[in-house]
Amino acid sequence: MRIVDVIAKKRDGGALSREEIDFFVGGVTSGTIPEYQSSALLMAIVINGMNAEETAQLTDAMLRSGGRVDLSDIPGTKVGKHSTGGVGDKVSIVLAPLAAALGVILPKMSGRGLGHTGGTLDKLESIPGFRVNLSVDEFKKVLRTVGTCIIGQTESLAPADRKLYALRDVTGTVEAIPLLASSIMSKKLAEGSDALLLDVKAGDGAFMKTVEGARALGEAMVAIGTRAGLRTEAVITDMDSPLGFEIGNASEIIEAIETLRGRGPACLTSVVTRVGCRVLAMAGVEQDEAAAIARMKDALTSGAALQTFVRMIEAQGGDVRVVDDYSLLPLAPDREVFRASRSGWITAIKAGAIGRASNALGAGRGAIDETIDHGVGITVRVYAGVEVRQGELLIELRHRGGRGLAAAMTLVREAVVIGDAPPAEKPKVIAELR
Amino acid sequence: MRIVDVIAKKRDGGALSREEIDFFVGGVTSGTIPEYQSSALLMAIVINGMNAEETAQLTDAMLRSGGRVDLSDIPGTKVGKHSTGGVGDKVSIVLAPLAAALGVILPKMSGRGLGHTGGTLDKLESIPGFRVNLSVDEFKKVLRTVGTCIIGQTESLAPADRKLYALRDVTGTVEAIPLLASSIMSKKLAEGSDALLLDVKAGDGAFMKTVEGARALGEAMVAIGTRAGLRTEAVITDMDSPLGFEIGNASEIIEAIETLRGRGPACLTSVVTRVGCRVLAMAGVEQDEAAAIARMKDALTSGAALQTFVRMIEAQGGDVRVVDDYSLLPLAPDREVFRASRSGWITAIKAGAIGRASNALGAGRGAIDETIDHGVGITVRVYAGVEVRQGELLIELRHRGGRGLAAAMTLVREAVVIGDAPPAEKPKVIAELR
Repeated sequence: MRIVDVIAKKRDGGALSREEIDFFVGGVTSGTIPEYQSSALLMAIVINGMNAEETAQLTDAMLRSGGRVDLSDIPGTKVGKHSTGGVGDKVSIVLAPLAAALGVILPKMSGRGLGHTGGTLDKLESIPGFRVNLSVDEFKKVLRTVGTCIIGQTESLAPADRKLYALRDVTGTVEAIPLLASSIMSKKLAEGSDALLLDVKAGDGAFMKTVEGARALGEAMVAIGTRAGLRTEAVITDMDSPLGFEIGNASEIIEAIETLRGRGPACLTSVVTRVGCRVLAMAGVEQDEAAAIARMKDALTSGAALQTFVRMIEAQGGDVRVVDDYSLLPLAPDREVFRASRSGWITAIKAGAIGRASNALGAGRGAIDETIDHGVGITVRVYAGVEVRQGELLIELRHRGGRGLAAAMTLVREAVVIGDAPPAEKPKVIAELR
Repeated sequence: MRIVDVIAKKRDGGALSREEIDFFVGGVTSGTIPEYQSSALLMAIVINGMNAEETAQLTDAMLRSGGRVDLSDIPGTKVGKHSTGGVGDKVSIVLAPLAAALGVILPKMSGRGLGHTGGTLDKLESIPGFRVNLSVDEFKKVLRTVGTCIIGQTESLAPADRKLYALRDVTGTVEAIPLLASSIMSKKLAEGSDALLLDVKAGDGAFMKTVEGARALGEAMVAIGTRAGLRTEAVITDMDSPLGFEIGNASEIIEAIETLRGRGPACLTSVVTRVGCRVLAMAGVEQDEAAAIARMKDALTSGAALQTFVRMIEAQGGDVRVVDDYSLLPLAPDREVFRASRSGWITAIKAGAIGRASNALGAGRGAIDETIDHGVGITVRVYAGVEVRQGELLIELRHRGGRGLAAAMTLVREAVVIGDAPPAEKPKVIAELR
């Protein structure tokens, strides 16, 4: 078999066979296929697509390129949770201890990807001492004792995907459903859960700008998981505006803790609860939705969820005092404010621009080896539908010595839209795919 | 400007601006754009196409990536000639001295490309001593004294095209009209002629398998040339069957010499004459077609054309005695024959399989650094439309010690089609594009 023939087949719109996909992924893993041939094939896949059969086989080949975590000796149904990523998305940090407090085993491995703010790992690392690089044995020990544990993906899972993702990132071949779906699912299948809940974000601050696109991605991933014997469901949630009021790293940990105390922002709590219902059902803990909501509410107000978070922090080496003393978190001291340029109704707080603003301040990374400033970030004090008066404080920027501030202010100005009438109300949870 | 944005634009079907194309070609030339990004963009161009404006600008950018030959101090209209390549194609070797004998200045630079048999340069190099690597000054000196000269392309012409072609060859991105047209035309524009005649081959043994494809490629090249101020015309000629009876290197030189003596195969002579009419017209030597045909016939029978070839061989260091003593050419001594398996009419001698058979014997090269055996090759003793009897000798294979013979025989068997009735007659010259 010659890779140039495989490339030509996909270039001409053909469907690749299992053998051809295995040959490609095997060559990527071993390094025998040069990157210039891989990128040509990736572009042909992006433009000409892949059918469900090809997508499943690509996922399987990437899964088989590396090892698999074995969680079978931990009793109970292990439910994984994955978000496609958004601005201010701290759902996992709240949901993992909340679900664990109610008896769910929720193992979570996160990627360190690029993005507007850091990922879940970066946010957790703002807690002094918190370790995300546990061994699989340590990971399983925490899962047994706490019920949840959040760590970085080990290098041995789906190495072909890691190589291909790095190449896709620089060759304009990221945004294609077969590639996105197989990339995510190859890693999720390798993580050894029994069930998986996907949070697919749709809107301005997400990979998928439209609900239709997010739905197609969600359906592709559910199909892959189901085909591979992994019970998979997806929720489509809104990412036109940031999730919650805090965008950054340390500040998002504070907002997560507040939510675990039962006093988080309504939009965040609603997403956590809705996703939580599916997680509790898949884990076999609570099938009834009303009962599940009541049990989650109780866990948030009773302190049980927060207590589980404290145990997780402790088990992962972090300073547990942060939950009672936010000053132990590395918040940057310098502030700037953005005020309403006119009176009216907030019709949009665009997540994309807010994310880039946060990035400009240093909260995210443009390259994989950049350092993140955990202390900078943005606090959005309003949301779409709120009436404001000219000069009213809308947004606070937490910066360090003015670094990136001018660019961030420009982006914040772009993000805030004030109109003459309140916008139509939009639910945060748009659809469920089971 | 970031190349990944240029890639994404073409991926999404957009038209690239002059600046974007310059950025790409500049980066390829300087090496600052890595091959994995170039190949992703090339694949997007292959699938999503380029409009005439983009194709012209890509050609111009590749032209400007290197130097340009200045022939302005040679008086008269310099007419270039280029063939897209076929099996048994020795038109240039006959036409160049024939046209020069009638007063045309015909400078020719050839690429050393890959192919079934060697290219024009390899065929000429079967003449002992013949040099194709003349300097531009030597080239111009021969042009002044002989009227024609055939050499290899200098490395300094269109270096971006050279790099891109090597990459296209291994990434399934060769067969796309904007890329084929701009690749050929960037080099032809760099060669400094005043007019250009393109012979675009169509059929089984050509890049373009269909007349429609060949016509589209021809039209794209004529448009590029015209736009750049180079008077450009094209003829579409048949390449379903080999051109002439000889396929190889030294044996094609013999057939070319025979044709220059006025006793070549009719199909070859007809293509040479038809192409020659356009070359004489573009050079301003003879506009009237009937008169041009008569003058060419006279040059072939009088010995004037052959005498010009002798002067060209001499000027390029070759042994001129070959024209009277073919034994000075390195013909391989071993023969094998292929006979008709049944009686009937020859309905096809497929050029593609004959070309691959010749290649199997060692007459062509698979990689750019492979050595060619000038002495091996194939003689096709029949052509489509001829009635044959079972057991009749149809094809001779000239091999060296049996090397590649079994594979060649299999291919020859595949090439010859015998039917129950004569096929429809097909002209060798299919169309002219002016």
